Amino acid sequence: LKVFFLVSLYTRWPVSMSAMNKRVVLAEHPSGVVKVDCMRVEEVPVSPPGDEEVVVEVTLLGLDAFIRTMMDGSAAFHGSTKIGDPLVAFGVGIVTARGASVKELEIGQRVTGVLMAQTVATVPAAKVKAARDGVSDAEHLHLLGLTTGLTAWAGVNCVSKRPEAGEVAVVSGAAGGVGSIAAQLCRAAGAKVIGVAGGERKVAFLRENLGVDGAVDYKRDIDTQLDELAPDGIDFFFDNAGGEILDAVLFRLRPGARVVICGGASQYNGNLGVGTVQGPKNYLKLAERGASM
Amino acid sequence: LKVFFLVSLYTRWPVSMSAMNKRVVLAEHPSGVVKVDCMRVEEVPVSPPGDEEVVVEVTLLGLDAFIRTMMDGSAAFHGSTKIGDPLVAFGVGIVTARGASVKELEIGQRVTGVLMAQTVATVPAAKVKAARDGVSDAEHLHLLGLTTGLTAWAGVNCVSKRPEAGEVAVVSGAAGGVGSIAAQLCRAAGAKVIGVAGGERKVAFLRENLGVDGAVDYKRDIDTQLDELAPDGIDFFFDNAGGEILDAVLFRLRPGARVVICGGASQYNGNLGVGTVQGPKNYLKLAERGASM
Repeated sequence: LKVFFLVSLYTRWPVSMSAMNKRVVLAEHPSGVVKVDCMRVEEVPVSPPGDEEVVVEVTLLGLDAFIRTMMDGSAAFHGSTKIGDPLVAFGVGIVTARGASVKELEIGQRVTGVLMAQTVATVPAAKVKAARDGVSDAEHLHLLGLTTGLTAWAGVNCVSKRPEAGEVAVVSGAAGGVGSIAAQLCRAAGAKVIGVAGGERKVAFLRENLGVDGAVDYKRDIDTQLDELAPDGIDFFFDNAGGEILDAVLFRLRPGARVVICGGASQYNGNLGVGTVQGPKNYLKLAERGASM
Repeated sequence: LKVFFLVSLYTRWPVSMSAMNKRVVLAEHPSGVVKVDCMRVEEVPVSPPGDEEVVVEVTLLGLDAFIRTMMDGSAAFHGSTKIGDPLVAFGVGIVTARGASVKELEIGQRVTGVLMAQTVATVPAAKVKAARDGVSDAEHLHLLGLTTGLTAWAGVNCVSKRPEAGEVAVVSGAAGGVGSIAAQLCRAAGAKVIGVAGGERKVAFLRENLGVDGAVDYKRDIDTQLDELAPDGIDFFFDNAGGEILDAVLFRLRPGARVVICGGASQYNGNLGVGTVQGPKNYLKLAERGASM
């Protein structure tokens, strides 16, 4: 379940005009690592559409790391999911019913939006928008997803000076939804790219599928691996993880380096909002190296 | 002695052609707050100048916070002062002797450079430079000092987007050598300025001498004071302190805010380089608010 929330997974549901909605609801606020008991799968009748609502049969859901941050109680970072409510998730689906006032969406139309973790979503028509022709469900949630591809694109290109040829870029959470795209965008920009992920399987994915120039397994000694892969330091860091990896990179920043903070997945299991986040103890390197975060 | 290192103090020595040099040397690396026993005042004969050296009678010394960071052992942040060596300090003085190869400096000339904490410095001529006419000793070490005025100027104007009218700027260590100038530069740029310092005397100095719009005493409850003085958040933070004040400001950043890291004086007494620096646990606000540090 840890992996479940750190990596964007896609689940394909059957498409049909259902009478019942199967959904994953929050059973209890997790303490630390999410356990199965924190969630409950329940089947409820599909809510008929209100005057300005549509019913959407969900065809694909994206489950991103930010969902974990919403599972905490009142101090949740991105707003708290209430006990009994479905987990928040972006999705793609087909409109199967609509309220009398809905004009801009047709039955049978493919739409995308925050459909929540369920098979049939009854939502305000204004909260979804038409999917693009020629763009697959997966592409909508991944490459063009607000919480995935677009986040990666903006982080690499717009937040600070983008990495360039001759520079060393590090991406943490590189096997995840955002990081896998960020790593590829850094490569496309010409930088030498080092991806960080946890465990042999993910590291193999980085090397074989993403074609990174180097891969760091954060479950082994981070410092040794970074010393070997980036002996002359790091110019650009796209950070999805925080914690130890952030400190290790800060320590190795080159003059003028840029750190783009996208997330802090290492802190989501209990520290963020409820515990004490591990702040980067090497942050003073920013001043020493004329770097920005 | 704590104040001694947090605020730039200026000590005027008598000007004369001395036979003896009185200097403050490091007796032991401090552990935590600096104690008197960590330093020793000793009197030694003035070293005659080598071929390319000058002898300088020190007229004014500036003692800055960075000196504390050099008093630690091998892990010292800005390089370690060795036991028995004089403490590092910028100074101004008069050349009283010079080696045979020194052409560019005259006897009687006023010079400035890293003269160390002593009354008579024998240093390479290349390591000092002529003081400017019309600029007092104090102005050389404070307003035009590399570790004071110029640092403040660059931090306010060059590191990030400078504060402007309608914005709220916070300066920590505002009663210190860098902060007192940074606060005035932020005011000159048109921002509403909140100064942070420790204790009633320093806070009174901020209000009465620097003319800040608000003053925070970090020895009282920081959150309550910031809530009152900056209810709508903070746009610009010039941080000399780190620790709690940095976290309190990060929590209140407005969208597009800039945090300029100049120093982390709250961490100098043992955390920096030797202990564990208190990293900013609210650093993820940078991502949430589109801010930079």
